[in-house]
Amino acid sequence: MKTAAVITIGDEILIGQVTNTNAAFIGQKLSEIGMEITRMVVVGDEYDEIMSAFKEYYENFDAVLVTGGLGPTHDDITKKVVADFFNVKLVMNNSVLENVRDRLSKRNIPVIKVNEEQALVPEGCEALMNHWGTAPGMLFEKGNKFFAVMPGVPYEMQNILTEYVVPRLKAKAAGQVIKHRVLKTTGIAESALFQLLGDVDEILGGRAKLAFLPSQFGVRLRITVKAATTEEADSIVAEVERKIRSKAEKYIYSSTGSFGEGEVDLEEAVGKLLRERKLTISAAESCTGGYISHRITNISGSSAYFERGVVSYSNKAKMEILHVPEELLVKFGAVSEEVALAMAEGIRKISGTDISVSVTGIAGPTGGTPDKPVGLVYIGVADSAGTVVKKHIFPDERIRFKDRASQAALELVRKRILGLE
Amino acid sequence: MKTAAVITIGDEILIGQVTNTNAAFIGQKLSEIGMEITRMVVVGDEYDEIMSAFKEYYENFDAVLVTGGLGPTHDDITKKVVADFFNVKLVMNNSVLENVRDRLSKRNIPVIKVNEEQALVPEGCEALMNHWGTAPGMLFEKGNKFFAVMPGVPYEMQNILTEYVVPRLKAKAAGQVIKHRVLKTTGIAESALFQLLGDVDEILGGRAKLAFLPSQFGVRLRITVKAATTEEADSIVAEVERKIRSKAEKYIYSSTGSFGEGEVDLEEAVGKLLRERKLTISAAESCTGGYISHRITNISGSSAYFERGVVSYSNKAKMEILHVPEELLVKFGAVSEEVALAMAEGIRKISGTDISVSVTGIAGPTGGTPDKPVGLVYIGVADSAGTVVKKHIFPDERIRFKDRASQAALELVRKRILGLE
Repeated sequence: MKTAAVITIGDEILIGQVTNTNAAFIGQKLSEIGMEITRMVVVGDEYDEIMSAFKEYYENFDAVLVTGGLGPTHDDITKKVVADFFNVKLVMNNSVLENVRDRLSKRNIPVIKVNEEQALVPEGCEALMNHWGTAPGMLFEKGNKFFAVMPGVPYEMQNILTEYVVPRLKAKAAGQVIKHRVLKTTGIAESALFQLLGDVDEILGGRAKLAFLPSQFGVRLRITVKAATTEEADSIVAEVERKIRSKAEKYIYSSTGSFGEGEVDLEEAVGKLLRERKLTISAAESCTGGYISHRITNISGSSAYFERGVVSYSNKAKMEILHVPEELLVKFGAVSEEVALAMAEGIRKISGTDISVSVTGIAGPTGGTPDKPVGLVYIGVADSAGTVVKKHIFPDERIRFKDRASQAALELVRKRILGLE
Repeated sequence: MKTAAVITIGDEILIGQVTNTNAAFIGQKLSEIGMEITRMVVVGDEYDEIMSAFKEYYENFDAVLVTGGLGPTHDDITKKVVADFFNVKLVMNNSVLENVRDRLSKRNIPVIKVNEEQALVPEGCEALMNHWGTAPGMLFEKGNKFFAVMPGVPYEMQNILTEYVVPRLKAKAAGQVIKHRVLKTTGIAESALFQLLGDVDEILGGRAKLAFLPSQFGVRLRITVKAATTEEADSIVAEVERKIRSKAEKYIYSSTGSFGEGEVDLEEAVGKLLRERKLTISAAESCTGGYISHRITNISGSSAYFERGVVSYSNKAKMEILHVPEELLVKFGAVSEEVALAMAEGIRKISGTDISVSVTGIAGPTGGTPDKPVGLVYIGVADSAGTVVKKHIFPDERIRFKDRASQAALELVRKRILGLE
């Protein structure tokens, strides 16, 4: 079994109310087990649309993974279409019913009719018990065809996929191995990185693919290799990585063996460095408004190295908590090299941490002047060896500005720890 | 012209490395002008796959919007396939070339060959000037068929779509109006909300659709109406909203006329309340690690009401900055009702704000005990009338825990301002 397709059901995707994170998650998980998805499609909550997608994809693909439309409310019709597609009835599944009753009673929620109806499943399917919600998954295996239907709530889908669907598919996916590795860079533009790498064909040697994926956090390089064995694939990936690193080593902060668990954000790379070197950190933020502390504390175990953060949005807070001298604020303004340094020194002193980072800037869209435009930001880092400050201009909308400024701040911490700044 | 489809090109989507935010953005924008997207498909960076999608969708839909694969690197092949599909050559477009040279020279970046090649476009297409990057968009209009190709970088695609593609489609979309309205609720489960609303058919009167969309931030209700005129659609939407509000008013914190700009997150709803009532706010966070401050400061203009935030991750920080008495930490522990209240009172006192919010809890995955399990969180609010504290248990993974805890904190602030707590 080699080719798979994903069908996502839901008007909310078509009208752009939500992004299709379910398809992305399925893509990751199947990729990890060497199963190639060659098409993903989205259809609305309409009987005919769902039926036509089922027909087209069931005929053309070995494995079809469906999500969405299994909820308890009137707008969820997927189960009905599945039953009609396989020409079977809906029947009550007692194990599922028990699970629904158990889950709700534990939370002291009365079981109502729409909840009980969630235990109806198409005759002949294997019901996939949902321990994370009330709608069961459904699996049909007929000959070489594999057809799985999962709820649309991401958390439930993710658990049902990894618990039941992936292990079953893995057994069928044998015969080829797909390996990806992602190298994450920051601080260099896409075309500059492309030029720096030089002859891409020489790097790939005809045995791998290389993709460039830019975002406000930096450019990711994805190496993809298909091979007969894991060993062969790993060896090709390693060789391509070695050649890329020989040219762009200092821009790379993360390298992964696979997706998901393996991929590391900059805050995790920094956290790992802090842990390894037994260093503690604190943060003083103005324009990033707590985002740097938030990113650092998104990492499990960060309490071992993150001591405190201060979001000194007002000048008063900068003076009172961080002890930034009033004369600096008056003479140079809150957005200045001098204040960035005083903030970094202030938070380091009151927290007693080994290293500290500070950010002051103008997130916009208002508040800019000809001298200090929207997007201007100063980043300071202080440690036992002294201080460093960097100026950037990120003339972006507010959220992207915060992304870029926090990324540049974490990058300065990383470089400082590694002795590159 | 009534039905549209979106084709997204890129291996990174199929393997789940990135989520398809482009399709979502296009979905929003087309929905706003009454053009219905009935299918979205994703294909990889493979010649045959792209060509087959072009053929299938060009035949079956009036409008086809394509994104991805227009970058300067070797893995981008969309332009070549477009030229072959329309059976034309690639020709140099001098205006585009000038734009590419202009953009790069302004940034002091030398123009290299791969940059110049971005000015090649299929003969007979209308080149859509990209003022936000170097890859031009391409538009083919033949008879009733509309075929637009845009870069995959979201920022560039968004600008090209809104600047050129949407206005042209709008002129063709006449004849029907689609209106959506989203009511955002928080603090009530999906099935409980469904039961509370009662007879949905009566609410909708056969003239609207209602969808339930649950997430960790609450359940969104989406009303959708198709009608001949804007006035008719608006009036039906308003009537449905009125009926829903008569039953679930207190759970609703946001109502939108359309998507995108109109949809309001809880931090924006709270910001609006603070502004209207001329109140200032401060935040003291432990387990949410700066996320509440981050969310509040994501709103443009928040410096008018947000004074400061403290991320008191350590007990030392709680005592030193927030003046939480050591005996409370010893007697009740950092995660307790007493400490949550002391944190809220402490930050309010040092900041001098009208209202303050505090959070202390156990984000996990480690650190739980039988008495205080992972997911336990106390939320405190202090204002001139006194204090209030709420206990929740959100036994979720770390990031979802932060989502839920910050949502519950903002909701408590909202209720407190409105006199509901």
